[in-house]
Amino acid sequence: MNIEDTLIMIPGPVPVVPRILRAMAKPVINHRGYEFAEMFDECRELLADLFQTKNEILLLSGSGTSGMEAAVGNLINPDETIVTVVNGKFGERFRDIGMRYGNTVPVESEWGYPIDLDAVAAALEDGADAVAMVHNETSVGMLNPADEVGKLARKHDALFIMDGITSIGGTPTPLDEWGVDVAIMGSQKCIAAPPGFAAVSVSKRAFQKMEDVKNPPYYLDLKAHRKSADKGQTPYTPSIPLFFAIQEALYIAHEEGLDARRQRHATGAAAVRAAADAMGIAMFPQPDEKSRYSDTVTAMKVPSGILFDQLKKEMLARGILIAGGQAHLKGNIFRIGSMGNFRSKDLLITIQMLESILHAHGAVSDSDFGAGIRAAGSVLMQ
Amino acid sequence: MNIEDTLIMIPGPVPVVPRILRAMAKPVINHRGYEFAEMFDECRELLADLFQTKNEILLLSGSGTSGMEAAVGNLINPDETIVTVVNGKFGERFRDIGMRYGNTVPVESEWGYPIDLDAVAAALEDGADAVAMVHNETSVGMLNPADEVGKLARKHDALFIMDGITSIGGTPTPLDEWGVDVAIMGSQKCIAAPPGFAAVSVSKRAFQKMEDVKNPPYYLDLKAHRKSADKGQTPYTPSIPLFFAIQEALYIAHEEGLDARRQRHATGAAAVRAAADAMGIAMFPQPDEKSRYSDTVTAMKVPSGILFDQLKKEMLARGILIAGGQAHLKGNIFRIGSMGNFRSKDLLITIQMLESILHAHGAVSDSDFGAGIRAAGSVLMQ
Repeated sequence: MNIEDTLIMIPGPVPVVPRILRAMAKPVINHRGYEFAEMFDECRELLADLFQTKNEILLLSGSGTSGMEAAVGNLINPDETIVTVVNGKFGERFRDIGMRYGNTVPVESEWGYPIDLDAVAAALEDGADAVAMVHNETSVGMLNPADEVGKLARKHDALFIMDGITSIGGTPTPLDEWGVDVAIMGSQKCIAAPPGFAAVSVSKRAFQKMEDVKNPPYYLDLKAHRKSADKGQTPYTPSIPLFFAIQEALYIAHEEGLDARRQRHATGAAAVRAAADAMGIAMFPQPDEKSRYSDTVTAMKVPSGILFDQLKKEMLARGILIAGGQAHLKGNIFRIGSMGNFRSKDLLITIQMLESILHAHGAVSDSDFGAGIRAAGSVLMQ
Repeated sequence: MNIEDTLIMIPGPVPVVPRILRAMAKPVINHRGYEFAEMFDECRELLADLFQTKNEILLLSGSGTSGMEAAVGNLINPDETIVTVVNGKFGERFRDIGMRYGNTVPVESEWGYPIDLDAVAAALEDGADAVAMVHNETSVGMLNPADEVGKLARKHDALFIMDGITSIGGTPTPLDEWGVDVAIMGSQKCIAAPPGFAAVSVSKRAFQKMEDVKNPPYYLDLKAHRKSADKGQTPYTPSIPLFFAIQEALYIAHEEGLDARRQRHATGAAAVRAAADAMGIAMFPQPDEKSRYSDTVTAMKVPSGILFDQLKKEMLARGILIAGGQAHLKGNIFRIGSMGNFRSKDLLITIQMLESILHAHGAVSDSDFGAGIRAAGSVLMQ
């Protein structure tokens, strides 16, 4: 089997189209010259549209996690308090990062269950300085209520850090309306470039707060990044090929239209859910009226009759990679991404293969067999 | 002028050969799959040879500066002391990073002058826990005595952090003999891949010390990187295209032969120095018997008769990019890299152009005109 022919249907890194791969293969340019500055400025502008914000965008040569650390480490002093909202793996990451920089109050729900807004409100009432939440919790396929958390943060004059790594560009994120002070995006997710690059949007309030933060990280110092950005540069050598890739990926997104792109993601996830429902496969996350299923990844319970490892292996043998569960969810759930520059055919063939394998193992009944692909098709062809 | 046709003769980022650019354009693979693990393990092994160490190699998706911060941030507690040796811009960077993590004792010399070994010894005598030094100080074109600093560190049982970003792969670095505990390499320098990737070697002593360091950075947490490395992975999503690039760049280096590669760098710098001498251009750095001129970049004083900006502009108009001085050296010096996959023809045409421009401005005399290219040629053709 040729790994390069595999259709990657995981929630990032997503497949990178040849046009972006070619852009990345351009000769390296001088990162202190005007050609770089032009590209840098253009990327920042196009990203602001993608983020749906008027805030300033800064660009980091590091993966999404580096953006999460930049946000927390530049906004919190050791004696200050950050509330970290946890209902999945990436919420836990915010908690772990928070613990390196200040007092951390984790507000934890069971993975895949709604976040506890009352507990967030109570922690903010107690004087917390910031709250950090993952918008699209990829590990469980759930979209958390950024609007509600933003409201609470404003009410208590706390800063709101939102991990939008797997939502920005793939689902609506009216950040300024929600009152997000720092939002983070990863290159290998909805924008569908290769991994290794993160963008963060920073509000005026957040920049003001940074003036009082004594000991931010060095490589991820957002004040240093802002100062260099004014000259069209980064403080340390940027990963030039990833800038080429991001620029091309942004052109593609803008050509498609940002609203159309977000709609395509929503339709893709709806198609997977419709197929699952028709095949009798249960969703894993349990959203309430304030949260909802993710637009960019769908997490389902592994049906009885097959083990996840067997399912993954048989899918891969047919050229399609799907994702399993992480940590304690390993073996219990499987996940299909509807993220990046995927097209209907990619989702349809994934569902077709899935349905055939599950049917062969008796995990989809004879009477349901075929219903999955029909349901997905009718959503995608609308 | 087409920027893509420009010959980049700065001390990094260096030109990337098409073979590496093509490798980078391969489709993205799953970073949790065995194909990635195989590449990851191979890169670590090839890098250990390049570093000239038996220590473990860890791979960071970040530029060289991220490697410097990883070294300092994982080895120093806030109440501990690090000596930072400064005789150029990158020594200052170690000082600035040190100040974020612990008590920092900078041992400063004027830029381009030898480091003060007595002051380093005194600071270690006073009980410093670590010493950090830039091996090849690119800003001034000087190679600092890593062997001497290593001896002092061992004598006082302190850890030795060496920035080998622009030396490893281009100049001999017997790290284990010198007693280097953490060495750092950047992808866009001697190995000639694109920027955005750093490798660090870590000694057993350094790993032991990390157990006692309470609050290392998160994205750059070397304990987390080591734990994942045992499984052929990185703790956070790696920049897959940069791994493809590094792998190909390492193949190229090993095909050339590591000794031959280092010799080529030394010969390249010797050719630039010979040309400068023949043209009556003065070297900028002032090495003593324990330090020496860099093998990977040559820093010269701008001769009278021309301003640096004019020289740079005229070189660029003819398709060659050279580097100037940084910070207070701006306008005073110029620098030519002999770094990466350069070939004799690249250096010769650079010197030929330089000599012509300087002669046209009266900065090289009629009688000396032609001596530069002849001197360089005789070194390169040996």
